[in-house]
Amino acid sequence: MKFDLNRATEILRQTPYTLSRMLEDLSPEWTESKGNSENWSPYDVIGHLIHGEETDWIPRAEIILALGENRTFVPYDRIAQFQKSKKTSLADLLTEFAHARNNNIEKLGRFELTPEQLALKGMHPELGEVNLGQLISTWVVHDLTHIRQIVSVLAKKYTENVGVWREYLSILQK
Amino acid sequence: MKFDLNRATEILRQTPYTLSRMLEDLSPEWTESKGNSENWSPYDVIGHLIHGEETDWIPRAEIILALGENRTFVPYDRIAQFQKSKKTSLADLLTEFAHARNNNIEKLGRFELTPEQLALKGMHPELGEVNLGQLISTWVVHDLTHIRQIVSVLAKKYTENVGVWREYLSILQK
Repeated sequence: MKFDLNRATEILRQTPYTLSRMLEDLSPEWTESKGNSENWSPYDVIGHLIHGEETDWIPRAEIILALGENRTFVPYDRIAQFQKSKKTSLADLLTEFAHARNNNIEKLGRFELTPEQLALKGMHPELGEVNLGQLISTWVVHDLTHIRQIVSVLAKKYTENVGVWREYLSILQK
Repeated sequence: MKFDLNRATEILRQTPYTLSRMLEDLSPEWTESKGNSENWSPYDVIGHLIHGEETDWIPRAEIILALGENRTFVPYDRIAQFQKSKKTSLADLLTEFAHARNNNIEKLGRFELTPEQLALKGMHPELGEVNLGQLISTWVVHDLTHIRQIVSVLAKKYTENVGVWREYLSILQK
């Protein structure tokens, strides 16, 4: 499937609502953070997604579009959410994520990106040269990766409860 | 996390709405079936989930609860959805799944299952002895497995578009 800004935006738009629908009626036993940066809970993942809206995707697009001399991105702190206060409820985090995402989708629309702009380059601090189209594609796949992570975390909590069915359930294999 | 019927039902209840929210505004390019039983599309997965509601989970629970002599389950046809007409829209399939699931959650509630009943045994045609609690747990994990499958299928469509970021995105690794 070729990159298309409208198709990409369809995925970016659904993510906060999909996650709200998935998580908002679950008991804390399913979702709450253990503060373990090696083993994220659904709560931790939402914090990570909010941090990405604030510091990663659109700020990096702006670095590329500013056409400056130095287009190296600021490294992204993957575990910033663990330094934040845990007093925010999951419901509030989900709302915050939806607001931040909707603002960023609006900004993305206001850029009115041309194919030439989508080919503009930036410099990833570790991976090297990337372009704006790849940045937006990665934003999309990053969303899907974290939805996948959340359902895997939920499933693994029931590993012991499925008995011999475990063998059939790939999500419990690793 | 120990098995608990209310906690399990929370997951069963969210699945159709989560999937509707995820898929209902996506273009067919993301979701449509290629009729390939080795490579399921989101459309195919919803068909599979509906078939499970009709022939697998509750019918197997009823076999166990009937306390009959022979409690061997009917084998489950994992690709039944490919024999069905493809004329149904994805939106209609999602509605059909939500109806079927809600009916089954109601049935599950009407069973008013006791801990003793949750320990009752059935016979899986391949895996052997299982109990009712394990059947319901597997229903839960099966849902999560297929949400995971759908986001993986969506993500892989953008594999070529992320450039060097591919290395960082575990969802694209296999």
